[in-house]
Amino acid sequence: MENEILEKFFRPKSLALIGATNTPGFGHGIPRFWGKNGWLDRAYLVNPKGGQLQGREVYRTISELPQGIDLAVVIVPAPKVQEVLVELGKKGIRAVVIESAGFAEIGEEGQKRQDALLETAREYGIRLLGPNCVGVVNTDNHFATIEIMDRALEPGPVAIIAQSGVFGNILLDHLPEVGLKISKVATLGNKIDLDEADFLEYFTADPKTKVILIYEEGVKDGRRFLNALQRSCRQKPVIILKSGRTPLGRQATLSHTASLSGEDSFYDAAFQQAGAIRALSLLEMIEMARVFSTQPPMKGRKIGILTTSGSLGAMTADALYSEKMELASWSSETIKKIYENAPDWANVKNPLDVGPSGIFPLALGTIFSDPNPDGFILIPVIPYAAIEIWIRLGVNVTALIGDWQALRQKIEGKPVVAVLLGSKEWLDQVRGLCGDSIATVNTPEAAAKTLSALYRLSHKSRFDVSV
Amino acid sequence: MENEILEKFFRPKSLALIGATNTPGFGHGIPRFWGKNGWLDRAYLVNPKGGQLQGREVYRTISELPQGIDLAVVIVPAPKVQEVLVELGKKGIRAVVIESAGFAEIGEEGQKRQDALLETAREYGIRLLGPNCVGVVNTDNHFATIEIMDRALEPGPVAIIAQSGVFGNILLDHLPEVGLKISKVATLGNKIDLDEADFLEYFTADPKTKVILIYEEGVKDGRRFLNALQRSCRQKPVIILKSGRTPLGRQATLSHTASLSGEDSFYDAAFQQAGAIRALSLLEMIEMARVFSTQPPMKGRKIGILTTSGSLGAMTADALYSEKMELASWSSETIKKIYENAPDWANVKNPLDVGPSGIFPLALGTIFSDPNPDGFILIPVIPYAAIEIWIRLGVNVTALIGDWQALRQKIEGKPVVAVLLGSKEWLDQVRGLCGDSIATVNTPEAAAKTLSALYRLSHKSRFDVSV
Repeated sequence: MENEILEKFFRPKSLALIGATNTPGFGHGIPRFWGKNGWLDRAYLVNPKGGQLQGREVYRTISELPQGIDLAVVIVPAPKVQEVLVELGKKGIRAVVIESAGFAEIGEEGQKRQDALLETAREYGIRLLGPNCVGVVNTDNHFATIEIMDRALEPGPVAIIAQSGVFGNILLDHLPEVGLKISKVATLGNKIDLDEADFLEYFTADPKTKVILIYEEGVKDGRRFLNALQRSCRQKPVIILKSGRTPLGRQATLSHTASLSGEDSFYDAAFQQAGAIRALSLLEMIEMARVFSTQPPMKGRKIGILTTSGSLGAMTADALYSEKMELASWSSETIKKIYENAPDWANVKNPLDVGPSGIFPLALGTIFSDPNPDGFILIPVIPYAAIEIWIRLGVNVTALIGDWQALRQKIEGKPVVAVLLGSKEWLDQVRGLCGDSIATVNTPEAAAKTLSALYRLSHKSRFDVSV
Repeated sequence: MENEILEKFFRPKSLALIGATNTPGFGHGIPRFWGKNGWLDRAYLVNPKGGQLQGREVYRTISELPQGIDLAVVIVPAPKVQEVLVELGKKGIRAVVIESAGFAEIGEEGQKRQDALLETAREYGIRLLGPNCVGVVNTDNHFATIEIMDRALEPGPVAIIAQSGVFGNILLDHLPEVGLKISKVATLGNKIDLDEADFLEYFTADPKTKVILIYEEGVKDGRRFLNALQRSCRQKPVIILKSGRTPLGRQATLSHTASLSGEDSFYDAAFQQAGAIRALSLLEMIEMARVFSTQPPMKGRKIGILTTSGSLGAMTADALYSEKMELASWSSETIKKIYENAPDWANVKNPLDVGPSGIFPLALGTIFSDPNPDGFILIPVIPYAAIEIWIRLGVNVTALIGDWQALRQKIEGKPVVAVLLGSKEWLDQVRGLCGDSIATVNTPEAAAKTLSALYRLSHKSRFDVSV
């Protein structure tokens, strides 16, 4: 039942835009986006001025629309939304996104408007997303209730539930730049009706979604949210970034989406009990998503590190300690094999620093065969000027640091994270080696943090208590 | 006196490379680099095989070289270095970089070799950099004792002292990618003679250097280092990243450069007393360098935030609280002016969230005129699809979010940091607005951390005690 109504949001058979215009802004951008992505022929545009837009007739009133429209998107000014919602209700439309701002987040007057909206929605049996949001995105069918860049539509494994519309939209611009691809997005805004719990359930059932990210400012119905969260966490990794962690952040979220952020320690405990992983920053959330969506669970805390830089190895060791992780001891076979092949100056420890010796491929094969580590961090940093000539001579980067994809198959059950540092030419080469089966991060600290989070995620059943 | 010898390292009038070869590697890359950058005509290449390299005659022995060479770079295998050093001493060369590895870092045998080197250096009055390093870089005259990429040679304000050669080299590849430009670099390796103190003094006197970064694994002569550090910190910001913060990191640094990392809390206290700022990660170091090299000191802890995303505003407020910073209260003039111009839904708080209202330029001018904040964080995130059409129509980005350079001049005495998030097209636009006078970072947390560090740096005199 729930999924049936959410299908109307993510896969509408027909839709209406209330507030279409021909001047720059949402009212212009949304129809253009629909036109570009094949949705305009099933879309009805409404504006009291009538006329034409994107080659489509513009209807002057909602009452002129045909019956049976699946989804309406409303972008008229706040004081007019109530009237529009009544008209939509009369027309039998049961799924509505209200993108307009100017409700509870601006104070008492807005709160009254918002209360009236909810009453109308209940009266007509409308399920409502918003207000103060940008609705949904589905990369699967290139549908969105907001104009986004083409590259954000490339389908991927990450679903997002974001309270704020602007922020959800920013994520859509930003994530492709950091190599994360999206399955679906829901922006909740003031969430007077549909909320986190609804979309958690929908995304958990969605076969395209492997990892769910939630950006939260304040939960309204804690019990409902935690029950849904716990059910989702049993099936998919859920990463939560919550603002309002501190007194200053709480003040800010209150004026932003009228959220009461609540005591942060409560959230911390509740998220952990439900089996979710909390990120403390946007960057952490992105990095965890990259690792969780590509890597298998991690059985223990013992990490093996292979590096060409002792300094970066040491920084990684520091970071692992801070994250309560451990360094694996190499097996006697590993130690023997590396010493047999390494130059005199080599020192077989973990982190294993092979410097510019050229034995990176051999060392990688060796440590991947070692039963001791539960996961691996690779730091293949090589000054580009030193190898540019090899690469120009046509020497494949696999000859320099190994055929990672082939070696990766030996240890399918263990996570592998690579730290990418250096010139963009080098990073492009290494990203190619990593493919989709080795996660990449940009700092030693991120490698440690994400593997620590993966370990906690892999052992979350110990927190699995009833809520 | 000290500077006279270091001038030979950074501005040699003539130089020799012991171990030049025609197979890929340092022995080939260094002469090629010197050729590209105008240094080959004053360089003497040495290899027992003789012949030609890069169109230059290769000398078979050091004894054949002319007298009066300023600097020698040694890249022969460790067991041969001692003999080479004696020859260089006899030839009267007084500045030597030993890049070869295989000394104290590999154990007892290497330690013996290293002790012998130092003895020889003392005997002949040689000042020695290394072993186990890649020497120096000077962007000013495009000189380096290692092959680096052209883009790393673009002159900038940041000097680097890195213990490890590979790591110093990686920084040279990586920093241009993150927008940091370099003045000079010294990599110390096992630092048996020249050390941090020597280069701190030299870089502090260097007019091209505004900020000094130190990557440290373990200090050998603590008193000497701290005295030099304190002297430098009185004149320029010094940022230190030190590995071996934890037991795991300490094990790693020991095997890397034979450093005893020592008790971390000792370093913490000592760095603070000297007036240096400690970074806990490479990323932090880079971000602090970006802010310290472009922004004026900050008088107080009160920050004003202008954002188009309430969510990012809330995250920034959380991060400021964690960094013991404060949010400024806007003056009554600011509040009045924003309310007069903002749409109904606006809520004039700090963070000031103007959403997609279009009043960003006016708001920026207004808060920059407000006497209350000691520094500013700008978060101009706008979904690119929503404004792409404006930009295509030729609307300048200054019309959308203001003429930052002109406004910046109103508050020359206060730091301003912008958070860059979004599509690369948008980031390119905002970077252009920021120019060289507004620092850019990539996360709300980095904005808070760097301004907090700048505040501590601006008030370091309170820690200024004699060591």
